[in-house]
Amino acid sequence: MPENSHNPEVQLIPPIGIIAGGGPLPVSLAKAVIKSGQNVFICALEGYGDPELNNFPHHWVSIQSVEEIINQLKLANCQKIVMIGNIRRPNNIGKLPGKDGPDKAAAQLASVGGGDDQILSGAASFLEALGFSVIGAHELIPENLIGNGAVGKHVHATDNIADIAKGFEVLNVMGNLDVGQAVVVCGGHVLAIEAAEGTDEMLKRVAFLRKDGAIHTSGGVLVKKPKSGQDMRFDMPVIGPVTVELVAAAGLSGIVVHANNVLCHDLQGLIAHADELGVFVEGTTPSTNGKVAN
Amino acid sequence: MPENSHNPEVQLIPPIGIIAGGGPLPVSLAKAVIKSGQNVFICALEGYGDPELNNFPHHWVSIQSVEEIINQLKLANCQKIVMIGNIRRPNNIGKLPGKDGPDKAAAQLASVGGGDDQILSGAASFLEALGFSVIGAHELIPENLIGNGAVGKHVHATDNIADIAKGFEVLNVMGNLDVGQAVVVCGGHVLAIEAAEGTDEMLKRVAFLRKDGAIHTSGGVLVKKPKSGQDMRFDMPVIGPVTVELVAAAGLSGIVVHANNVLCHDLQGLIAHADELGVFVEGTTPSTNGKVAN
Repeated sequence: MPENSHNPEVQLIPPIGIIAGGGPLPVSLAKAVIKSGQNVFICALEGYGDPELNNFPHHWVSIQSVEEIINQLKLANCQKIVMIGNIRRPNNIGKLPGKDGPDKAAAQLASVGGGDDQILSGAASFLEALGFSVIGAHELIPENLIGNGAVGKHVHATDNIADIAKGFEVLNVMGNLDVGQAVVVCGGHVLAIEAAEGTDEMLKRVAFLRKDGAIHTSGGVLVKKPKSGQDMRFDMPVIGPVTVELVAAAGLSGIVVHANNVLCHDLQGLIAHADELGVFVEGTTPSTNGKVAN
Repeated sequence: MPENSHNPEVQLIPPIGIIAGGGPLPVSLAKAVIKSGQNVFICALEGYGDPELNNFPHHWVSIQSVEEIINQLKLANCQKIVMIGNIRRPNNIGKLPGKDGPDKAAAQLASVGGGDDQILSGAASFLEALGFSVIGAHELIPENLIGNGAVGKHVHATDNIADIAKGFEVLNVMGNLDVGQAVVVCGGHVLAIEAAEGTDEMLKRVAFLRKDGAIHTSGGVLVKKPKSGQDMRFDMPVIGPVTVELVAAAGLSGIVVHANNVLCHDLQGLIAHADELGVFVEGTTPSTNGKVAN
């Protein structure tokens, strides 16, 4: 029986279980969930999770100890589970020296072929088979979805319209091939397409290209949307204040995302940065592809 | 009348005019043309051309002095012209302080909207209107095209077949959008797509991703082909010894190109590197897109 069993209220409202990888998102989510009046319990993944996760009810656990993760989530009386944060699968999972190596469940999950999406999908099915409900962060904090229209005081100019359309066009065809959540278009030219490197690295590349004289036109846009058919419970596209900073550093004019399909980390911070740096951040509904729910 | 008018043989065989941007290709082309028994005259672009161009009949000229380029090519009695090497259009062309600024022809070319392809296309039309014939490097050194099959001693494994097919699939859809000549695929996953950064930078990114633990599968391939409808007289895809080195450094197994559509810089050096590093280099004819001539 959990230690907090003397407090009946905690037992009556099961905490949201957060399996937390790296980056600021898990902390941001935990804060938002608590702010909304719910409790959290965090399974923080060793080597990935942010130390700030220690400020919440938590347990540190190895990514190789899936059975321990399950036990902790059960002990905490969690029913709804969110998997969030960066998890780069170690090349040597299943071969780590020392300790006990992966438990049976971890070895089974790691044996799944394919990329992160397949691994996460397998983990979700595994958790659901045990009776947990795996949900997306956006279901808990829908107010952090970028909706239709501008979120800050700046808006796109007429010049940006063709680039925005081209960006969605590229992402639509790429998404059908299970590649790419983001693209940078400037003056009708695709400057960068995101694959495994992530949006931040792509934006740093654009900044370098501009410094290097390879970009002929000023302005340009970052366009971001989920891949077609993407399971929005994991690897949902996210933007935040850092995205805005990198967009400005790359000399781009703004960010356009598929409305209600991209999560914002630290919306207030994002708006503050965007307003200060003259960057527009907007949600819109691309008309050319009906595969992503709006 | 040119100084060499005392030598009737030189006048009888007009030299190939090479308008030379940066990188090793112009030098490599000049050597190959001379080896084939023809002469060259190089208009080396100041700030772009390799100093080794000084070893050939040449004249250094500013990219802003298009009229001087024309005059020099005429004086040298050139008829066939190749435009080759990297030319990154300065952001401030037409606004450079000092000197004389761009001449009328340069200003006209620079005013063309669009990317490098459009600029080069405009320059080619301009030269042809003056009576020159603009040709592609591959027409002079067809032996440097990667043909069908392996060029070194290593060949692809069964494991690579799906990645090669996926690579061409991505390039086909991207090429229709005027983006991308190269892609890296590993274990069915697209790790990187080339846009404005070029193949070398993309491969360095993949090496970093692998070091960083973001790549889950060993091996993988670089796939390269021209964009659909690309004018093969300029910006033809090129591979060389450095490409092989970067492919090996990225932990990839090999390179596959669209046969007879990708030029090889320093074929002997490429083969030596490939054989030593265990990298396969092959040409093949992708079956899924008939838009690129084979």
